[in-house]
Amino acid sequence: MTQEKTRVLVVGTGGVGTMSAYALQQGGKAEVTAVIRSNYEAVLKNGISIDSVQYGDGIKGWRPTHIVKAVPNVAQENLPPFDFILVTIKNIPDISPTVSDVIEPAVTPGKSAIVLSQNGLNIEKPVVARFPNNPIISSVSYIGAMQGTDGYVLHDDPDEQKIGPFSTPGVPAQAAEEAAKRYIDVYNPHGKLDIIFDADIRRTRWRKLIYNASYNSIATILRLDTPRMRMSGHIIDDLIRPIMREVIAAARANGVTDLADDLPETVIRTDPLHTAFKPSMCQDIEKGNFIEIENIVGEPLREGEDKGVSMHTLRTVYGVLRGLQLKVKESKGLWEPKFSADNPYQ
Amino acid sequence: MTQEKTRVLVVGTGGVGTMSAYALQQGGKAEVTAVIRSNYEAVLKNGISIDSVQYGDGIKGWRPTHIVKAVPNVAQENLPPFDFILVTIKNIPDISPTVSDVIEPAVTPGKSAIVLSQNGLNIEKPVVARFPNNPIISSVSYIGAMQGTDGYVLHDDPDEQKIGPFSTPGVPAQAAEEAAKRYIDVYNPHGKLDIIFDADIRRTRWRKLIYNASYNSIATILRLDTPRMRMSGHIIDDLIRPIMREVIAAARANGVTDLADDLPETVIRTDPLHTAFKPSMCQDIEKGNFIEIENIVGEPLREGEDKGVSMHTLRTVYGVLRGLQLKVKESKGLWEPKFSADNPYQ
Repeated sequence: MTQEKTRVLVVGTGGVGTMSAYALQQGGKAEVTAVIRSNYEAVLKNGISIDSVQYGDGIKGWRPTHIVKAVPNVAQENLPPFDFILVTIKNIPDISPTVSDVIEPAVTPGKSAIVLSQNGLNIEKPVVARFPNNPIISSVSYIGAMQGTDGYVLHDDPDEQKIGPFSTPGVPAQAAEEAAKRYIDVYNPHGKLDIIFDADIRRTRWRKLIYNASYNSIATILRLDTPRMRMSGHIIDDLIRPIMREVIAAARANGVTDLADDLPETVIRTDPLHTAFKPSMCQDIEKGNFIEIENIVGEPLREGEDKGVSMHTLRTVYGVLRGLQLKVKESKGLWEPKFSADNPYQ
Repeated sequence: MTQEKTRVLVVGTGGVGTMSAYALQQGGKAEVTAVIRSNYEAVLKNGISIDSVQYGDGIKGWRPTHIVKAVPNVAQENLPPFDFILVTIKNIPDISPTVSDVIEPAVTPGKSAIVLSQNGLNIEKPVVARFPNNPIISSVSYIGAMQGTDGYVLHDDPDEQKIGPFSTPGVPAQAAEEAAKRYIDVYNPHGKLDIIFDADIRRTRWRKLIYNASYNSIATILRLDTPRMRMSGHIIDDLIRPIMREVIAAARANGVTDLADDLPETVIRTDPLHTAFKPSMCQDIEKGNFIEIENIVGEPLREGEDKGVSMHTLRTVYGVLRGLQLKVKESKGLWEPKFSADNPYQ
């Protein structure tokens, strides 16, 4: 009799979610259920096609063990509990439904560990509040994986993750840490992938924000790739480097003290110059999707300013991004301007 | 024998330029030569059509006395000098040719008075440097006039202007003032229009910037009309009002001391709420045109910061606008990024 497999639900099967589902299944210890919304029919029929820098090109017809169209309701459907719920959907707390709303039907209180593989700061706060007795795990991912149409994924940068526990009042620190380590073991049982335990996830998240709050935000506003920004010179000088310095100052004021002064110069050179790469939020705005501004910009701004740090560049950028978000809201029918004589906006 | 008419050259025949040419010709004292570039053939054949809030709807087949395709070279073509050269083209000092380059062939040194009907601060500086012995006149216009295709103009807000002399080292103050007053007389000989002499053009220009540096800039970045911004609430709070306050502080630091504290609340309500009006720079960026960022944003920013005023919002906005201008440059072949291995931008 084989050992019973760890039940993992993957919510969000874009590039990152699909490659995580693939890795989990490959590892042999997990039984993966994937929620596939937009491509459900195509994936059911033909499976998923992958060209992968790590698993090889030309993978065809791959399917996770279970494919479902919506987040399952474990209580109503009388399912065994999920051990892990991996969340890779965008985090847009300013728009309903929130992450907690989406996963709630699949969460067995006190049992399922929730892995948040999303960018930004304080993403765990509403989830901890909703599920105070479940372990909440942070995954900061550096993978490059992009979803095409009909279940195709291009995986062009290796799957690297830093994984560690968020602090949760209802879960002892040791249990939270064990949950994170168990997830790493299930994800990477043979140690082939660069998936490491992270004892300081707050530092890791601030560190990644140095790139995301700057390049991701400005790419979104200008609809411009990162190499063009570097080649301009002035976009780096006027916007990117000032934001990076503000974020580093905010991180330091919030206890992340070991970020080097010359870190901006390293992060400015993160992306290669030979290809016109646009960060995720820029891709989202160009597709007409909501943008992840609250955890990538709003939260670091509030944390910095609460500690008295001047973050003038990021403050203005945040205002612009909120304006862009409003346009997305209007396009989705969630905001309606009133052009009439009895307009209340006088 | 009739009195000899004042020779006026109009450079730039968009909405404002066309309505100025019309007013000058209507007044009866001017002989107008209009430089018409894009619509030359259409206007030559069919004239200009105008629907005007002041002159009536359905004006058809109107033509200024002379229509030319390019700025005339008075020396080479042996033309009598122009008394006035009215400039209504966009002011993009960061791109060649500049305003001075464009008008130079038509300027008779020491004779032609140059009327700059353009927005922003310090627009006269390069013109004064190039033509130090010619009177330079400021026109700040509040007209609403928009050019359609094939020589059609919709004139929907009355022609109101404040006109006064710029200070020019080679022209005595009294002569400069007389030139401005002569222009007013030629433009508005019967006193029907609200065209007034302005003894404090610097104040007038700073005052207009309160709107333009804020609404015009943010509309350009967000590609959003002004009523939607007002209805959002947060765009006003995050961006528009902060910029207005910064510009007022900069104006005060530069000697324009009589701007009221509550002026932002008035200027915020400038545009009506029933129609989705987009300011000029926003219209330009949507058409793929260069944007007038240096005189509307760059100059007030530099003047304010030189006097020690904190202008954090406008500084970031300026950086974003420079990024947008770069994209227009690239689209017109004036900037080319280099995506190659031996890239100099490391």
